[in-house]
Amino acid sequence: MALRAARYIGDQRIEVGNVEGKPPAAGEVAIRVAYNGICGTDLHIVQGHMDTRVAMPAVIGHEMSGIISAIGSDVESLTPGQPVTVMPLRWCGECASCRAGHQHICQRLDFVGIDSPGALQEQWTVPASLVVPLPEGISLEHAALVEPLAVAVHDVRRSRLVAGETAVVIGGGPIGQLIAVVARAEGAEVVLAEPDAVRRAFAAQQGAIVVDPIEGDLAAVVEERTSGAGADVVFEVAGTRGTALDATRHARTRGRVVFVAIHPEPVPVDLHRIFWRELEVLGARVYEREDFERAIELLASGAVPADALITRVVPLDDASEAFEALLAASAMKILVDVQGVRA
Amino acid sequence: MALRAARYIGDQRIEVGNVEGKPPAAGEVAIRVAYNGICGTDLHIVQGHMDTRVAMPAVIGHEMSGIISAIGSDVESLTPGQPVTVMPLRWCGECASCRAGHQHICQRLDFVGIDSPGALQEQWTVPASLVVPLPEGISLEHAALVEPLAVAVHDVRRSRLVAGETAVVIGGGPIGQLIAVVARAEGAEVVLAEPDAVRRAFAAQQGAIVVDPIEGDLAAVVEERTSGAGADVVFEVAGTRGTALDATRHARTRGRVVFVAIHPEPVPVDLHRIFWRELEVLGARVYEREDFERAIELLASGAVPADALITRVVPLDDASEAFEALLAASAMKILVDVQGVRA
Repeated sequence: MALRAARYIGDQRIEVGNVEGKPPAAGEVAIRVAYNGICGTDLHIVQGHMDTRVAMPAVIGHEMSGIISAIGSDVESLTPGQPVTVMPLRWCGECASCRAGHQHICQRLDFVGIDSPGALQEQWTVPASLVVPLPEGISLEHAALVEPLAVAVHDVRRSRLVAGETAVVIGGGPIGQLIAVVARAEGAEVVLAEPDAVRRAFAAQQGAIVVDPIEGDLAAVVEERTSGAGADVVFEVAGTRGTALDATRHARTRGRVVFVAIHPEPVPVDLHRIFWRELEVLGARVYEREDFERAIELLASGAVPADALITRVVPLDDASEAFEALLAASAMKILVDVQGVRA
Repeated sequence: MALRAARYIGDQRIEVGNVEGKPPAAGEVAIRVAYNGICGTDLHIVQGHMDTRVAMPAVIGHEMSGIISAIGSDVESLTPGQPVTVMPLRWCGECASCRAGHQHICQRLDFVGIDSPGALQEQWTVPASLVVPLPEGISLEHAALVEPLAVAVHDVRRSRLVAGETAVVIGGGPIGQLIAVVARAEGAEVVLAEPDAVRRAFAAQQGAIVVDPIEGDLAAVVEERTSGAGADVVFEVAGTRGTALDATRHARTRGRVVFVAIHPEPVPVDLHRIFWRELEVLGARVYEREDFERAIELLASGAVPADALITRVVPLDDASEAFEALLAASAMKILVDVQGVRA
């Protein structure tokens, strides 16, 4: 069975062509993919930053929605026709992380869509255990946001943010914006720092207090909003050396700092501030099943400005241009429409 | 009333001479100081590292024991003749930290013995609220260890270490050794890394597994002791750039890393490891009253090798030589005997 798919073929190139589909084996389901969002990690892949990890040619994509088209034997809780999304993590179940109950950060984690084939294809076959059914009242377009929203939900849950607290979000890209939305849904006040005016305006529209960290004074704003105490939680989502160093500055005594952005190399951190204020620095990676459930709940409730977050939707054949557009400008989220592609 | 005292007079010099004593005012007590231990911070002061903070000439010292000699009016719970130690923190009670219940890291903290006169004098007048009575069964020599032990108790409490867990202690100076002792008293297994053979032998005698981080392979030992999982808690007590970078490497997924040593300048930290393993980095500073109480309990119970930790006791007149000796060699703790000094 030939399927249309977008594949990363190395050399910073995405190519749309045919791949061989496979029917679901025992314990698997086949999903007819509807939408697939392009993520920062996908951009890293296409820029060649992860060539040692990704087996080319690679069908990538892991922010998706679709309809179950077939189920393998031994699959009992799912049926063809069901709208679903996928939590793209496969763990070994045997390593020390898994045994400790932290399967989502399994020491041999297979991140589906990076380490194994992803959703940028007409039909995607995955283990049934990864499938998360969608409730009524959430469109397939919006459901493509569940995965990145689950990242934000996980980050906020790791921070133990509660209603009435103040959160600083450094960086207003898609994940920063989603963290701000989730934090506000939890009842927190959000101060978001972002140099791009369009992204600042987006956050302001969602109710965040926004600061231009270049022209403005984030520390002064945080101080004023917290009567000099500092923020309860700081999320570092920008991923620069400057913001990594600055993040600890804005937290109150015993405040929590979550490093969300990925810093591939060690960067200077203000350990003296961490000591002086007895801060807590928390690493947060991907999500757990409950984060997916909460993300779906938030999307279904209308708490997430899903339409505004989706900058545009492009057909699968234009996937390559979508990557180029994301690399060139500050679009929020571009979805690839995988339905109705040329056979 | 003239009192003998050791004062830091600048220029890396300690001078023993007379200071004017003052009777206790309302709410204060006067303590006839028995012993005063010399701490790493005192060494920093005498090396001139804290000249902008310390008002010279300065009577320093904050690890002490003594006997109450007089009480001011309004002091009800203490009586002359009582053996005591002092928790040397004065907080403002009004700043955001104090209001949040974190008085020990008050934003305007007066650390007595650094920011105001300390215990290296025959008689020391302090607010009664700072005084911690000693129970029967703890000698005045041993009681001079309560303050540094309370630091270790606080560090271990911040780490949430529980019985059956494995703790790595990087650095076998006095605080590292005390953390190892407290961690073992909590029922944890301790792996202590220290390049100095004498300090390693000390830790081994207290039941720690010891590793020479230069000749040996700390990561391999931790891996072996934890079946590949990594340590539950890592304490970075060495304070070098290398150990700050290395500390995160030895923790299991969701493990805790406590940066105990003071890093005055930002240093590179492996944020990727913190992200990858969802680590928790905790700042810990001084102690709270319950840490003092627990430290006294541990000393009274005999769980702390107090005699072995006290390398020697010198008279007040030799205070200057004691500082020189500590700077030159790897002594553990030198106490200054402030009793029976020349009048």
